[in-house]
Amino acid sequence: MASHSSTLFSSPPRAFAPPFSSHRLCFNLRFPRPINTKPNNHSLRCSVSIEKEVPETERPFTFLRDSDDNSTHSSSTSSVRARFEAMIRAAQDSVCEAIEAVEDGPKFKEDVWSRPGGGGGISRVLQDGNVFEKAGVNVSVVYGVMPPEAYRAAKGSASSDHKPGPVPFFAAGVSSVLHPKNPFAPTLHFNYRYFETDAPKGNTQNSLSKCKSTVFLFDFASFFFCQCLDVPGAPRQWWFGGGTDFTPAYIFEDDVKHFHTIQKQACDKFDPSFYPRFKKWCDDYFYIKHRDERRGLGGIFFDDLNDYDQEMLLAFSTECANSVVPAYIPIVEIRKDMEFTEQHKAWQQLRRGRYVEFNLVYDRGTTFGLKTGGRIESILVSLPLSARWEYDHKPEEGTEEWKLLDACINPKEWI
Amino acid sequence: MASHSSTLFSSPPRAFAPPFSSHRLCFNLRFPRPINTKPNNHSLRCSVSIEKEVPETERPFTFLRDSDDNSTHSSSTSSVRARFEAMIRAAQDSVCEAIEAVEDGPKFKEDVWSRPGGGGGISRVLQDGNVFEKAGVNVSVVYGVMPPEAYRAAKGSASSDHKPGPVPFFAAGVSSVLHPKNPFAPTLHFNYRYFETDAPKGNTQNSLSKCKSTVFLFDFASFFFCQCLDVPGAPRQWWFGGGTDFTPAYIFEDDVKHFHTIQKQACDKFDPSFYPRFKKWCDDYFYIKHRDERRGLGGIFFDDLNDYDQEMLLAFSTECANSVVPAYIPIVEIRKDMEFTEQHKAWQQLRRGRYVEFNLVYDRGTTFGLKTGGRIESILVSLPLSARWEYDHKPEEGTEEWKLLDACINPKEWI
Repeated sequence: MASHSSTLFSSPPRAFAPPFSSHRLCFNLRFPRPINTKPNNHSLRCSVSIEKEVPETERPFTFLRDSDDNSTHSSSTSSVRARFEAMIRAAQDSVCEAIEAVEDGPKFKEDVWSRPGGGGGISRVLQDGNVFEKAGVNVSVVYGVMPPEAYRAAKGSASSDHKPGPVPFFAAGVSSVLHPKNPFAPTLHFNYRYFETDAPKGNTQNSLSKCKSTVFLFDFASFFFCQCLDVPGAPRQWWFGGGTDFTPAYIFEDDVKHFHTIQKQACDKFDPSFYPRFKKWCDDYFYIKHRDERRGLGGIFFDDLNDYDQEMLLAFSTECANSVVPAYIPIVEIRKDMEFTEQHKAWQQLRRGRYVEFNLVYDRGTTFGLKTGGRIESILVSLPLSARWEYDHKPEEGTEEWKLLDACINPKEWI
Repeated sequence: MASHSSTLFSSPPRAFAPPFSSHRLCFNLRFPRPINTKPNNHSLRCSVSIEKEVPETERPFTFLRDSDDNSTHSSSTSSVRARFEAMIRAAQDSVCEAIEAVEDGPKFKEDVWSRPGGGGGISRVLQDGNVFEKAGVNVSVVYGVMPPEAYRAAKGSASSDHKPGPVPFFAAGVSSVLHPKNPFAPTLHFNYRYFETDAPKGNTQNSLSKCKSTVFLFDFASFFFCQCLDVPGAPRQWWFGGGTDFTPAYIFEDDVKHFHTIQKQACDKFDPSFYPRFKKWCDDYFYIKHRDERRGLGGIFFDDLNDYDQEMLLAFSTECANSVVPAYIPIVEIRKDMEFTEQHKAWQQLRRGRYVEFNLVYDRGTTFGLKTGGRIESILVSLPLSARWEYDHKPEEGTEEWKLLDACINPKEWI
């Protein structure tokens, strides 16, 4: 194992990291020394453990296992796992700093937790602030194994009598939902994630074929279900996913153009096909089927991306994460103090109801996380502080509310 | 076909009721004469059709097809379908009357709609009243056929090469959720439903076996999925389901005892095993798994009930529906004007958030209805006017909020 250092944190003390285990707990996290080193001024608090998570009183230097942590290497040779974790933690820091600067007083609260068998997360929430009703920015790192049912489903009728061994996987992501108070300031969501499998353990047969993976590392859910088989000795499989989308209650065309332009600029640095492709993917994903409308005005979304160079996709994800602040914060600065009426607020609350409907009914990470025992408070921090449902509400044609709804029903090209 | 009369409505004019059709529309509803006869003073309005529903401007005498409507018979010989529809419409009327009496001014708005191929419904909603934030009381009558997938799933490995014909079904129900404004007044939900299959059409094989039905006639959802096979010429299969449960934000023991006592009295008139059995069923059904808590303090719940005399179960369902007003209205009368603080209101809103979570994530009728194209506004009228989600909220031990939460986590015997 390599010794430690990092461009983000000071060198930590060595602690024993046990081999993977599905049993609860005893996973020693490695903390930076001195332990009071905190990159930001977030208050650190400890929450009660829910199910399988164990609260931690200190933010660790890394959530990686010893065997993955080659952070003494130069940045170009350290593992993608290590660099992705560093990237999402830096993104969490920079977004939280930008939000706190806008808030001018209120600070994020932080919960740190570890998971049995390895990994952990940092949840930061700022609630009922000056500008934001609720802002959540989470990172999580997860080690797990794919369930046997996934293997059986994947094998199908072509299965042999040999039982495949478990395939360990690694996943990490940053997720955020930012709900401002002012009804003219849009809600923002972003999430960037990386998934990787190890070679299967205890699997000696060569007949297993690779198959398409279904990854459920979404947003605040830290659980996964993957129909993926790996061939012993074959290179690890990996995927990138994520996106940034925004959800105004009222349309200001300048805001929408600015937001989409920043997304396009980030995409165009890597591939001119990315923006049109990921913009459409975003419109398709954030679709509330039972309403036949999208929850907002889109952005970019991609998933299971592995058909480009791995370094390029890591750089692309980093560029997207770095684009969140310039894409969003200027809009909030302009809109946060605009005067509004009770009717404007009620309409925002109705749109928040749609947000709740999408997240609880359709969002794969949320629904899967809720049903399989994810950390509930981290999963549901995406829900707004308050939401509203009026029976059979229909905005009058031509009104500002109607224009927003029309754009959610009929996605537009904004730039 | 029999001519019409009813104890509920005056004799209607005859109109042609077409044979079953899966195509949109052209189903003539039969209205009472004179057409301005309205049992209550609800304002009648017409909504825009959503998907397969067609708005109607008048409340029909019955939603039954001509072939089912033997309402000229004496009440003891008319079909269970006809008597169940009469019962649920009477229940809708009496509950709405009681709510309007409490409101002392505000009235329900009514939407009437028909469905392609037969059936229809009446949705009544009173929103932002003096006492109720949102009160919805719906009835629906549905004719349909079970999807072929249900047959295939039911046949399993014992299937023959013969394809079973479609099995027509009939279902009817009354559903209601009443959300008061005052945080000391509890939310109430009730739903009573009846399901019946016809003999399969176009099925000449005798090898099909009966199997357990899974009925999704829940609440505001008017959609069904049934793994049920019928033998040609065999008696129709039928089931009753339903329940009444209540969801306070604060516990007043007298209220809880009163509510459960009325439920028990209704049950005890029929079978002493009903109350304990259906009370536990209720606690089990309204379970928010990801929170490990129930949404409220229970009541009674039963489903797929067909192992008693059909007349007895019709009478039992009627008794339960008639018990709603005496079980609930006295509690609302006592609590509706109690003084409360912002903190009390915020806690009520948090519990409403749990209500939303249960309905959108677990409630079978809601989730199935949303995903298969039910009438959205009728399905989602069960959601409160407003709800709230605070990150990691935990009531302090010993407080009134903690006591409610404790009772939701550990269901109690109240009487």
